[in-house]
Amino acid sequence: MTDMLPTGATIGILGGGQLGRMLSVAASRLGFKTHIFEPGANPPAGQVADRVTTAGYDDIAALEAFADSVDVITYEFENIPTTALDALEAHKPIRPGREALRVSQDRLTEKDFLSGLGLKVAPYANVESPDDMASAVAQIGAPSILKTRRFGYDGKGQARLKSGADADAALVDMQGAPAVLEGFVTFTHEVSVIAARGIGGDVACFDPGQNVHKDGILDTTTVPANLTASQRMDAVLLAANILNALDYVGVMGVELFVTQQGLIVNEIAPRVHNSGHWTQQGCTIDQFEQHIRAVAGWPLGDGSRYADVVMENLIGDDMDRVPEITREGNASLHLYGKADTKPGRKMGHVNRITPRQN
Amino acid sequence: MTDMLPTGATIGILGGGQLGRMLSVAASRLGFKTHIFEPGANPPAGQVADRVTTAGYDDIAALEAFADSVDVITYEFENIPTTALDALEAHKPIRPGREALRVSQDRLTEKDFLSGLGLKVAPYANVESPDDMASAVAQIGAPSILKTRRFGYDGKGQARLKSGADADAALVDMQGAPAVLEGFVTFTHEVSVIAARGIGGDVACFDPGQNVHKDGILDTTTVPANLTASQRMDAVLLAANILNALDYVGVMGVELFVTQQGLIVNEIAPRVHNSGHWTQQGCTIDQFEQHIRAVAGWPLGDGSRYADVVMENLIGDDMDRVPEITREGNASLHLYGKADTKPGRKMGHVNRITPRQN
Repeated sequence: MTDMLPTGATIGILGGGQLGRMLSVAASRLGFKTHIFEPGANPPAGQVADRVTTAGYDDIAALEAFADSVDVITYEFENIPTTALDALEAHKPIRPGREALRVSQDRLTEKDFLSGLGLKVAPYANVESPDDMASAVAQIGAPSILKTRRFGYDGKGQARLKSGADADAALVDMQGAPAVLEGFVTFTHEVSVIAARGIGGDVACFDPGQNVHKDGILDTTTVPANLTASQRMDAVLLAANILNALDYVGVMGVELFVTQQGLIVNEIAPRVHNSGHWTQQGCTIDQFEQHIRAVAGWPLGDGSRYADVVMENLIGDDMDRVPEITREGNASLHLYGKADTKPGRKMGHVNRITPRQN
Repeated sequence: MTDMLPTGATIGILGGGQLGRMLSVAASRLGFKTHIFEPGANPPAGQVADRVTTAGYDDIAALEAFADSVDVITYEFENIPTTALDALEAHKPIRPGREALRVSQDRLTEKDFLSGLGLKVAPYANVESPDDMASAVAQIGAPSILKTRRFGYDGKGQARLKSGADADAALVDMQGAPAVLEGFVTFTHEVSVIAARGIGGDVACFDPGQNVHKDGILDTTTVPANLTASQRMDAVLLAANILNALDYVGVMGVELFVTQQGLIVNEIAPRVHNSGHWTQQGCTIDQFEQHIRAVAGWPLGDGSRYADVVMENLIGDDMDRVPEITREGNASLHLYGKADTKPGRKMGHVNRITPRQN
């Protein structure tokens, strides 16, 4: 396996939040060092990394020095500026690759891409002007939801239309940013597939998890999800379809709506995903190690699930419950080492485990 | 729980090897920062720690600065000089405490302590001179084994006596260091109990594991061990007895010989232990997190085992097998990030998991 990055090599990680932190720990388990690149001071990932560079994504010299110090570059978030990616890629490989970033950085591009693969998505229309908005509302109707094409997360950059009368206000909310109007989909529940693809094209998917959101932020993921065997198969196959189409290397989160008409793709994230944290306790090789294996050119783990798990996010004041959680049996706590607790901030999560039932 | 060290606090770890490394990762999972104190440059634990101090145990100023920067101090090895412990303890609590170190740093003291608890140990006699050696051989006989009282590990500092004729050569091997002559025990196999005691006196034991050594170094640990239900109960109760007698806080490794006459205590180690690495894949809370929970004053996890596990150490050239191990199903690999592979050096381990059978 001459393509395998040797142990002792250094993996560069763009972004120093909790995902970078857990990627860094997984990399260490395989004998790799990590180097975190993060604009903010004292990033959570820096507490468990060999090196940290504190610099902005517009600091080309810092990006180049970072790239020169590592063997391969990966990332914990998709909204990395193109100029930064250009500077990095001139020095070292970026995995997952640029095409996955290009597609997922823009909701319109992403929906066009998914539709082009023959996958179902919610009805959508591009909105860059008041004229676009009028025709989008005519086409999609209401209720619907206007979302910025770029830089949205955890419900931010979104405005709901209860009726066509809300169109003007929603457009103002976008602050002039290009947007997409999405029709509401009637779904029974949301699931996500955490899928991985290796450098040789092999694909391994974890069991789909069922997601519940609260205030626009993921609250819980439960495995197994409430899916029929054929729905589960559909979910895994369509995820594999997406990864293959992108010649993807790494772990991707694929969010799906379960509807009477089948599975509808909500969105994709070219990285480890909050809805995959359950794998830390449910699988021999979790999503973080799976991602590191992929970007390092190592064989993927098989991703089999040995337990039923409910992952619960700890957001803001949920931290007050930590003492009682530490007294629960079969609860695995993961805290992110963030200095300040703020409303809506992801502070940690807990995986509650029971023996596998089916 | 006002005694609980708050998340965001810093745990100081003496020793930067693989045990310190895995303790550091476990601490991060609970939101703690870690600071490693280690005389050697570029310690494996430093790759996943917030801070590293590179200084010797005779550098009192460095020890004091280290102690001032942390909230509690623990360690990955027992042979810490008393002067260093004095300097540290003047500033911050050391857990497990001094009594456990005093007992386990000297084989004679340890055997006297264990015998005093009514536990069985191999026949032993103190050897500080040729006269002692003569009377020890007369008392213990041969085959037997002469071991330095302090600083032995992985079979180092030991000399075997096939007969009394080997006595002089064995004594020369000790290079004048005080030693203990131990009688050979006829045992069917060796097991160890990884036991934890919390700051409030609660005790939790992991299932005993069965150990196989090769060239004096642990090769594999298998759970469940080959023990009857009553032997398993004896093993756990005697381990709890030891921890309670020491008013112990943290994880301890207790090695036991299984004999026709019952369980004989081989040795104790006041720290996380190589024979407890299987807990990383067999339990919701592993020995490293259990140790951190104890020294941080947090409630212990229950330590239940959900899988059968065989832990195999990767020593020296075993690293050549890493590519094939990465292709195994249900094998969890843990590499230590050591720069150089040397014969006899512990480079990593692999936990192979199967569903729990009993």
